[in-house]
Amino acid sequence: MTGRKRIAFAMAESVRPRMYPAERVAEFAQVADVAGFLHEFGSDAARRTLADVDVLITGWGAPGIDADVLAAAPRLEAILHSAGSVKPYLTEDVLARGIRVSSAAVANAIPVAEYTVAMIVLANKAVLPAAARYRALQDDVQPDSDFPDMGNYRKRVGIVGASTIGRKVIELLRSYSLEVVVYDPFLTVADAADLGVTSVELDELLVTSDVVSVHAPSLPTTDNMIDARRIALMRHGATLINTARGEIIDQDALTARVVDHELYAVLDVPVPEVLPPGHPLYTSDRVLLTPHIAGSLGTELGRLTGSVLDELRRLTAGDPLAHELARERFAITA
Amino acid sequence: MTGRKRIAFAMAESVRPRMYPAERVAEFAQVADVAGFLHEFGSDAARRTLADVDVLITGWGAPGIDADVLAAAPRLEAILHSAGSVKPYLTEDVLARGIRVSSAAVANAIPVAEYTVAMIVLANKAVLPAAARYRALQDDVQPDSDFPDMGNYRKRVGIVGASTIGRKVIELLRSYSLEVVVYDPFLTVADAADLGVTSVELDELLVTSDVVSVHAPSLPTTDNMIDARRIALMRHGATLINTARGEIIDQDALTARVVDHELYAVLDVPVPEVLPPGHPLYTSDRVLLTPHIAGSLGTELGRLTGSVLDELRRLTAGDPLAHELARERFAITA
Repeated sequence: MTGRKRIAFAMAESVRPRMYPAERVAEFAQVADVAGFLHEFGSDAARRTLADVDVLITGWGAPGIDADVLAAAPRLEAILHSAGSVKPYLTEDVLARGIRVSSAAVANAIPVAEYTVAMIVLANKAVLPAAARYRALQDDVQPDSDFPDMGNYRKRVGIVGASTIGRKVIELLRSYSLEVVVYDPFLTVADAADLGVTSVELDELLVTSDVVSVHAPSLPTTDNMIDARRIALMRHGATLINTARGEIIDQDALTARVVDHELYAVLDVPVPEVLPPGHPLYTSDRVLLTPHIAGSLGTELGRLTGSVLDELRRLTAGDPLAHELARERFAITA
Repeated sequence: MTGRKRIAFAMAESVRPRMYPAERVAEFAQVADVAGFLHEFGSDAARRTLADVDVLITGWGAPGIDADVLAAAPRLEAILHSAGSVKPYLTEDVLARGIRVSSAAVANAIPVAEYTVAMIVLANKAVLPAAARYRALQDDVQPDSDFPDMGNYRKRVGIVGASTIGRKVIELLRSYSLEVVVYDPFLTVADAADLGVTSVELDELLVTSDVVSVHAPSLPTTDNMIDARRIALMRHGATLINTARGEIIDQDALTARVVDHELYAVLDVPVPEVLPPGHPLYTSDRVLLTPHIAGSLGTELGRLTGSVLDELRRLTAGDPLAHELARERFAITA
């Protein structure tokens, strides 16, 4: 149904002021009637709000939406999620009832892809090792003697997963003189050609790439996908970038090769996400370890909520949603 | 004159094997007759080579080309330089005689621009400070509490100098959600509009930009252009990137603000290029100091020599050169 909607926001209380400060809510209030802010769906007050809501605007830490919640929200027609992965917040009952689900995954892909491309450029150019050597020596450094193969020219980048983020990385890399190969079991030859990349098997990707970047979804089928055998395939001096989920990689095998000075790594999602004190990934000079920052943070949250607002405008106008989750993609989406 | 040329290479002996290994020279030999390799122009042997050379292919550390050398090279019609700044290798006599001069400045701009864009992304996202904090704490880090304004969204980047490199940075930044302002006294309003940027005065650029990147040529007029007064204009928490020439900046004033935790800096060209041991720029956690690596190195040298080979092909075919130095631009070119 088109027309002005009644909306409620649902997310962790700590998330709300960062993502939906008063001035942003005011923009939503121009488009829709704001029924309230929820951080749980169990209380009587929450049930009263749910009873006449058309659209839920969800965010990180939103309470789960299952059959019970659906029963309490008879008018609910759409869930617009303000972040990437919406699946953790709902059961398939939602799609079964015909409720439309949309996420800000495309907007959320942008900072991850930007971080990744910056790291690819740094890795190929040996920027951080060269800087570390200059700092350690405090003397003349000859980077092209120490790193004769440095440079962002005629290098191979292997993208694991032609996901929304993987595709955005590929798009940004078109401006660079780098060869891009992709492994994705769901990527057709025609899709690869459209993307301007070569589709290869995962083993070949690992054997031949100078930089490998992981953009596969975290699913039972991708757990430990890059296992110890595959970590061993990576060429000496290559870099592994992981901004996806740590569980995809055999972290111990990777750590061993990094500590042995055989590989470099850029890790935004170690396992556990806060490593125990003294873990060698904290101290290795071959690792750039970042505290889960590749995704949207700070000013980038405004891009997510802007994406949701645009989607709400489309819904209200009866236009097709730009970022709707197709039911047949549910199983292979993170 | 069109037709097959007689060429000689001139550069430092140490540069030749890195830029013109045998397989690359073989490609040139398909297009032209190779008279020899010179690293000085004074010996009898060098003079004999110069006597019947049509084209000099120069590179880093080439001997200077002045009136005396020109007199020894009566057939010389073109100098094709395999790097960015050709001016240090010749006097204006060369242009006065009508000898065509071309450089690989456009090809050399690419890695510098790629390095710069990677650093802009890292700076806006507070990647290195967040990584340093995670490593120092070895505990949970809340980057968006520590760095609430982090993010590559709705930030202002100030480009000092719409040079070949500055323009390439602007071109790459078109894929990002960043506002770009430029200071360049030679940039017209129409040029700025074509580039899709806003032209501002240098003081305004420094006051308002989250990241400032220097791409001005090193000329008497640009020495100390960003002096202590202008360093003081930069906003708290801003980042200065310098891949151009250190002399453009008051390095002591910058160092003082960096050490006081007011600014961040990414410096590829400190003064002197190898800082004395113990210099605070080596140890500040607010500085990424790299040993002059932003320009072409390693595999990227192949892009430079490829650019020269393409230019030689054009010269031989009588086509317009793609990268000819216009005589009227000589004074404002590095």
